[in-house]
Parts: sequence; structure tokens; C-alpha cells
Amino acid sequence: MTRERLTIFDTTLRDGAQTTGVDFSLADKRQIAALLDDLGVDYIEGGYPGANPLDTEFFAKRPQTKARFAAFGMTRRQGRSAANDPGVAALLDADCDCVTFVAKAWDYQVRVALRSTLEDNLDGIRQSVAAAVARGKEALVDCEHFFDGYKDNRDYALCCAIAAHEAGARWIVLCDTNGGSQPHEVERIVAEVARVIPGERLGIHAHDDTGQAVAVSLAALRGGVRQIQGALNGLGERCGNANLTTIIANLLLKSDYADRFEIGVTRESLTGLTRASHALDELLNRAPNRHAPYVGAGAFATKAGIHASAVLADPRTYEHVPPESVGNQRRVLVSDQAGKSNIVAELERLGLTLRKDDPRLTRLLEEVKEKEAQGYAFEGADASFFLLAKRVLGELPHYFDIERYSVAVDRRFGAIGASDDAGAEAIVKLRIDGRSTISAAEGNGPINALDVALRKDLGKYQSFIEDVKLVDYRVRVFQGGTDAVTRVLVECADAKGEIWSTVGVSPNVVDASFEALVDAIIYKLVKSGAT
Amino acid sequence: MTRERLTIFDTTLRDGAQTTGVDFSLADKRQIAALLDDLGVDYIEGGYPGANPLDTEFFAKRPQTKARFAAFGMTRRQGRSAANDPGVAALLDADCDCVTFVAKAWDYQVRVALRSTLEDNLDGIRQSVAAAVARGKEALVDCEHFFDGYKDNRDYALCCAIAAHEAGARWIVLCDTNGGSQPHEVERIVAEVARVIPGERLGIHAHDDTGQAVAVSLAALRGGVRQIQGALNGLGERCGNANLTTIIANLLLKSDYADRFEIGVTRESLTGLTRASHALDELLNRAPNRHAPYVGAGAFATKAGIHASAVLADPRTYEHVPPESVGNQRRVLVSDQAGKSNIVAELERLGLTLRKDDPRLTRLLEEVKEKEAQGYAFEGADASFFLLAKRVLGELPHYFDIERYSVAVDRRFGAIGASDDAGAEAIVKLRIDGRSTISAAEGNGPINALDVALRKDLGKYQSFIEDVKLVDYRVRVFQGGTDAVTRVLVECADAKGEIWSTVGVSPNVVDASFEALVDAIIYKLVKSGAT
Repeated sequence: MTRERLTIFDTTLRDGAQTTGVDFSLADKRQIAALLDDLGVDYIEGGYPGANPLDTEFFAKRPQTKARFAAFGMTRRQGRSAANDPGVAALLDADCDCVTFVAKAWDYQVRVALRSTLEDNLDGIRQSVAAAVARGKEALVDCEHFFDGYKDNRDYALCCAIAAHEAGARWIVLCDTNGGSQPHEVERIVAEVARVIPGERLGIHAHDDTGQAVAVSLAALRGGVRQIQGALNGLGERCGNANLTTIIANLLLKSDYADRFEIGVTRESLTGLTRASHALDELLNRAPNRHAPYVGAGAFATKAGIHASAVLADPRTYEHVPPESVGNQRRVLVSDQAGKSNIVAELERLGLTLRKDDPRLTRLLEEVKEKEAQGYAFEGADASFFLLAKRVLGELPHYFDIERYSVAVDRRFGAIGASDDAGAEAIVKLRIDGRSTISAAEGNGPINALDVALRKDLGKYQSFIEDVKLVDYRVRVFQGGTDAVTRVLVECADAKGEIWSTVGVSPNVVDASFEALVDAIIYKLVKSGAT
Repeated sequence: MTRERLTIFDTTLRDGAQTTGVDFSLADKRQIAALLDDLGVDYIEGGYPGANPLDTEFFAKRPQTKARFAAFGMTRRQGRSAANDPGVAALLDADCDCVTFVAKAWDYQVRVALRSTLEDNLDGIRQSVAAAVARGKEALVDCEHFFDGYKDNRDYALCCAIAAHEAGARWIVLCDTNGGSQPHEVERIVAEVARVIPGERLGIHAHDDTGQAVAVSLAALRGGVRQIQGALNGLGERCGNANLTTIIANLLLKSDYADRFEIGVTRESLTGLTRASHALDELLNRAPNRHAPYVGAGAFATKAGIHASAVLADPRTYEHVPPESVGNQRRVLVSDQAGKSNIVAELERLGLTLRKDDPRLTRLLEEVKEKEAQGYAFEGADASFFLLAKRVLGELPHYFDIERYSVAVDRRFGAIGASDDAGAEAIVKLRIDGRSTISAAEGNGPINALDVALRKDLGKYQSFIEDVKLVDYRVRVFQGGTDAVTRVLVECADAKGEIWSTVGVSPNVVDASFEALVDAIIYKLVKSGAT
């Protein structure tokens, strides 16, 4: 059976830039464009050239993508001709394959927000689209407020869409701008519009304000649209745009869609979805959502005893799709609800084989529970769990003893001896093979100073740790207030690209960090086979 | 028009306990039950008495709620009579109004996971329900894997539901256990089931594995169910249960539902929704999701220049419901995309009136941009923004100068002079009214020591800050690694219950924390009218 081709239009770089707490750099935009292109989306909307210096610069040297590259902007302003409008000119001059014109499709908005006439708004759509087409560019029209407009004044909303269509727009995109429409309304309205404009010219642009942007997009698809717009990881203003990460996985893995439609993302590139999603978060320095559908660290995790046994016996029980299809993995969580079979499975994943009736397993389970009661979380610290297991199993080599560390931070303000920055100094004293070493280091903060001092002289082990790089450092405080318990998670990487995470817990952020840093070093020594 | 009564069944305390990274304490469970009851849900599922010590203890002294209080557990085991099954006995003996029995409704699962016969599984449902009813308890049956089962073996799935119904179960709950079903499938299947069992006996229990749990629940409602199960803030295993926070708001604010149905949550108690959602996160020490529908800090926020002006002119443009209907508020973000009108609106909210043509506004805007380029984020630090504005406007009183601070952390391991914990000491030197004060303090960590030393002797201002309490402390590191920039957010509260947030940025976590702590103190002095 031939499947119908659907189009995925990504607006991470344009609407996604409106996310609170996200500020793209030029380098970010280039990297994200490459990431989207690797994934296989059909369109990448790069931004709004002319509206801000960043986007202008980004378009000045556009990324080379297989995907069609789109510039976003407004239709010609009221009372101007398209030829005489600097905004439209900037779009037509932009180095891009297509232009997305945003136009209001709600009569109320045209009158109140634009203070324009309904007829002039329609002319603006027609003339702007015609100008783009004349310049050899593909034109898209984002019909803003389409669904609110349709409910308020059906005829005018339709007129806007038809004007775009007749002027030659390749895509007429129905936007639920304030995100308030429900999937069943959208499905019905789209089906009505598709009687007037062919569905293969219609797109949907949804927002997550009622928690249903994915469902709205898929409902519109069932209603007849053939382009879905959204942003990776659901970036976007307010509650975000429709989450393309989730939508792409649904389209390829749910048979109601997969059997009928095909998209530019293949089953093979789908296995890169989890990596792409995390790479975007990494780039933006956002903590990935553990509970994100398909790609979250917890999306295929289970911690309850009975569920964990069941999922190991038959994954279909609690897994609606195989985790590896999106490049994710099953996790049986080591947590204080963990049973023995969970721990055995987790150890196996880390390369430690243990029989379920091994008496050391009971001790390990008790140790894990006790540590977790203190605030440790091994769910995000594989390497620390690995070391704990090795220790309980009596298999951890003894590399060195720590005798002492100290850190001092000092800052003077005002006239005499004032410092622009706070300085930090650390001292670490170790004993290796009966020999004491003491190292001191300065840093721009206490943890940095400690990290440098710790790794300065590890005697005969020094060569094993030369390529260790600290790549992430996270702090979590429990029970609120500075006198609470602090959990530090540290992520390190080496030259081979291996990444490992360790955890430290203490009421003292410096002490918790030191513990995690020491674990990270020991893990590297174990993995390197140092003895 | 009379509206039909819908039932909301909350499982935050049972299924929500499966959330990765969440571990309820007994006190947590009691507080959450109270919070749910205040909100107005109809059922509170408290847990699984007998399965773990925590739940057993929780049921031993059940919370007094207006909502019906439910105990969860399995139907009688294979080959036993209900009267002779300790699990069922524990449920019947539990101090609760109703019992939720979980039973498999997928023949494949019965045979493979339970290694039972199809007939025995049906008997188990009938006998367990009958036993509960005989003991005067309301019975619910969670039909696990209902939708997968229905698609695989329609007749058997229906038989399970019918067995529960005929045995006298008040509610037969159709569960999409692995969360893989699509809204349109669920709507169709529910409509088919509702031809056999009246909809007012049917419930839906959905999970968010395809990002559509809210839509699935509402689709089931349209299909015919009259009970919706879920968890506050979408807590739950893997990607979470259906998010009741979002569902409740949709049911009360979207006319397709609000006109047809009524629920126990009133429009008045809905204004407590944002507070309830944040209180739950607070209790569990999770960072609230900024992008959560309705209740997220960003749900009604806008940062783009044109959107911000439009939303101020006419909120309907980008707000699908009034933010105050859910106890949230409109935010026009102070960010490096902010324009003047945004800043003026934000200042107004903070009680500072400024004209748009005031020349000081340009300076403030420049200051904000420069600070944000350094890593400051005022979106989550109202009090620091307030102080920055007061400073630029020349309205900030000069209270004291900081001359110096220093912090030391030291720890010895092994035999001689070993310390169990790392000690921290801090010294803070201030100048107030020409007089120097120097204070030293110990703490269990460097930030705690600094905080205590800073607030130890503020001379004539001391009385104003006696009731300040540090309630939250968050650390964020940029660009990865310990040598990156650290942003610290501090939240303080006073005896009147006012809460304010401040921010500090530095490569040094101690220095960033100190900056935020100082801002917090100065804000309190300004607010108290100290001079």
C-alpha cells in the first residue's frame, strides 16, 4: 500500500526562541539547524530576518541543509504596497527557500489589534504571497488565530485561507495561536476547511496551553492537513509549541499513522531521537525532562517491585513501544523500592554479573537503601552505583587514601585590597602506596579549586586521569534553605567519549562535591584497568 | 440546563508514588491528601495497604476527608477463595470507604504474566468485588491493559468489565496501562463498551507515554465514561499519569465540557489550582514546570516585543483563558528581548510607577540587558529586579557597606583529627553608619555559615530582619564544568508570609550565593521601610 507523504515543519529556531529562559546564540542556531537536518524534518524555519540582529546575522550566512529553509515575517503593512514595504523586502532578499508570512485570520484581531480593514488584510495576504512567488520563493501563510477566528466569524477566517491559497501559497497553516482549542474542535474545523482548500495544502500549528498540542496536531492530521508544525522538545512561548519529538515518534510508531503516512524521518534516523532531544537540552543548558514521552530518562523506567518483575518477564506489559526504536533504553531503577531482580538487571547492564541467590546481593540492597535514605540518588549516577556494588562485592581495588582537604574563599570590597572576584584556594592531601602527596590549587570557585588540586598529583595513576574532563555539575538542595542536605551530581567524560555520572551528599556543598569528584576519578581508574 | 455530574478520582498517593525521583514520607501523604480534599476531588486513592510499611501506616490512621478514601490492591490470588486471601483481607480490613481492585483484562497477560486461566481471572474479579460489597465497601475495578486487551481479544476484555459490573462494582475503570493508546481509538472503544455497561459506571485511567494522556481522558469522556482518574501535576510512573491539574482546568474552563458537565471542583476553588500545584512540588522538592498548562510560571508569560504589546492591549490575543481563573498571573518578562512597555508593566506589578518616556527607563533597560548577558535571570528573581530598578531610579537607601567576607571548609579523614563532617566557618565584616562590625559563624556548609554571619549583627537594622527565613536555595551552572558561571537563586520568607526571590551570579558558587543573600536582606529592609 502506498502511504501518503506528510510534511514536518520545524519552528524551533523561530517560535522556539520565544521560550522563557531560552536565549539562542548564533552558534546554537547553527548547531540546532544541523541537528534538525540530520533528523530529517522537511522545513526549518530559521527566524525573522530584519527583526533582530541575531536572526539577520543567521540568515546572512544560512546553514546548508537538505531541509527547505524558511524565513518568517509579516505580510505587507497596512496602506503600503508589497513592493514598497521594507519588512517584506527583507524577507524576499533573505537567503532562503521559502517565506512564512504571518497574517491574522480573526476579524476581531484585524480590527482591534491591527486597526485595519478586513479587505486590506486580505489584500496584504494576496500581495505578499504574490510578491514572494514572483521572486521564485515558496510561500507559506500562517493564519494566526485561525480557530478562534473561525468560531467567531467563519466566513472571514475562510476568506483569509482562500486568499492565501489563490495567491499561490504552497501551504496555508491553520494556527491555534493562544493554544486554547480542543482536539475534537480542530478535527471538525479542519475537515470543513478541507472541503474548500485541498488538505495537501493545509498545515497545523498548535500550542500546548491545554496540554493537548500533540493531540491537536494529530487530530488536524485526521481532519485533513498534511503539514505539522512544531518545535523539538516542545520549545516555545508560554506552555510551548506542539512537541515535534513526541509527534515524530507517534507518526512512525503508532500503526494508525505509520500505516497511512510517511515522513522524511526514517525508522533508522528515529533511533537518533533521544540523542537529538538531549543534545538540544544540552545546548540550551536545560535539564532534560525525565518524564518526556519516548525520550525521557524515565520514559521506560519502572521502580515498583511487581511492575519491574513483569516488565523484565514481558516488556509489552509496561512498554507501548520498544525503547530502542527511539534510541532510549529500559531502566529498572535502583531505588529504595528496588527488589533483587531489579538490582541484578541493573548490574548486568553495567557489566557485573551476579546470581540472584548470591548472599552479597542482600548486603548491596541494604547499602543502597541506607544510602538513598541519606539522600543519595543512584538513578542518575550509574558510576557511583557501580563503585558501591564493586565495593560490597569486594572487587574494588584500593588506589589511594584521602587524608585531608581544605578550601578557602575570600573577598574584600571597597577601597583597600579590594578584589574584583572572590578567590578560592584548595589543598588536597592524599596517601598513595605509603607516600603522602599534598597539592594546592587556585580556582575561580571552591569546587574548581578542589577539582584541580585533587587531580594534580595522583602519583603512578596520574597518566590514567589526564584526559578526564568535567562536563556537568549539578546541585540539588533538599528540604529548602542552606542548612538542608545538598546532593551534587557530577558528569565526567574522557577522550574516548565515555561519559559517567557520580553523586555526593552532605549538608555541605563543598563536601558533597568532593565526594562526587573522588568517585569520578576512581571510576575512571577502574575502567582503565589501573592497579 | 442541568449539567451531568462527573467524578474525579485522584491517584497521586498511589500511582503517583511510582514517579521516578519521588519518595513520599508519611507527612507528605497526609499533606497531599488535605490539599486534594481542599481542591475538591471526589476520590482519593491513598495507597496499597499491606504492600509496604508506609502505606500500612498511612491507612492505620486514615486522613479525615470529604472525598471518598480508597485502598488499592489485587483481586484474590489464583486458587484461593476471596475469604481466604490475606491480600484481600488487608483491603477489606483497611479503614477506607472503597476498594480499588486491579485485575487484568488482556487474555495474553492473564495467561503469560499471571499463568492463570481466563475463567479463574473472571472468578477472581467477581469474588473480590462481592466480598468488598458484602463488607459494606464500595468497589472499583481497574481493568489493567483494557485497551490493548480489547484490540487483541475484544470479547475477553468485555467479559472482565461485565464480570466486575455484574458483581456490583460501582466503577469499572478502563486502564491504558502502558500508555500507548491514541485518543481517537479510546473514544471509539469507550463508546462501544458504553453500549454494554452504562457510561455512569465507567472510568478512564490514562498514562502520558504518547504525550496525550489529557486528550485520551477527555476523548474517553466524550466516548461515555463519567469518571476520570489521574494525578496532580501528572505524577506517575514513566511519563506520568493523566495530569489532573490540566484536566480539571480544561473541564471547568472549556465550554464544550463546562456547559455539559459539573465536577466537585468549583470555579472558586479553581482559583487555588496554581497554589495547589506549586504546593505539591514544594512538598516533593521538585522544581515546578515553568511550561505547565494553566499553572506554570510561564503559562501566561510573553517575552517577544510585539506579542507583549498585543497582550497588554488585548489579553485574548495570547491568553486562551484569564490567568486569574486558575490563580495564575500574566507575566511580561523582563528579558533581553524586553521592550520598554514590558518593563513598565513589570515595574507596575512591583509597585513602581514610571512613565514610558522617563529617561531613566532607557538606563534601566540597558542595565537589565547587561546583567542578563552576564548570566543574571530576573524572570525568577523579582526582588533583585526591584532593587536594580530602585538603584537606577536613585531611590534605594544606602543601608550598609560590605567590607569583606571569607569562608573556610576543612575536612580530615583517617586516624588523627578525623572529622565526621566537613566544618565550615565564615566571617563577614560590614560598615553601618561609620561603625564596623565583624561577625563570625559556623555552619554545616559554607553558604549556611555565611548566611548566619551576615545576619548576626546588622546594628540598628537587626530588628527588621529577625523574622527572615531562607526557604529555598537553587544553583544552576552554565556551560558545564566547575569553571563555568554559577547562578544562585535564593528564596526568603518572613513572618507575614511574604516570599521574595533574589539572584546572584559569579564563577564562584560562594560569591554568587553571598550576592543573592545580601539582596534578600536589603529587599526586606526596603519593604519594612527601614531608613
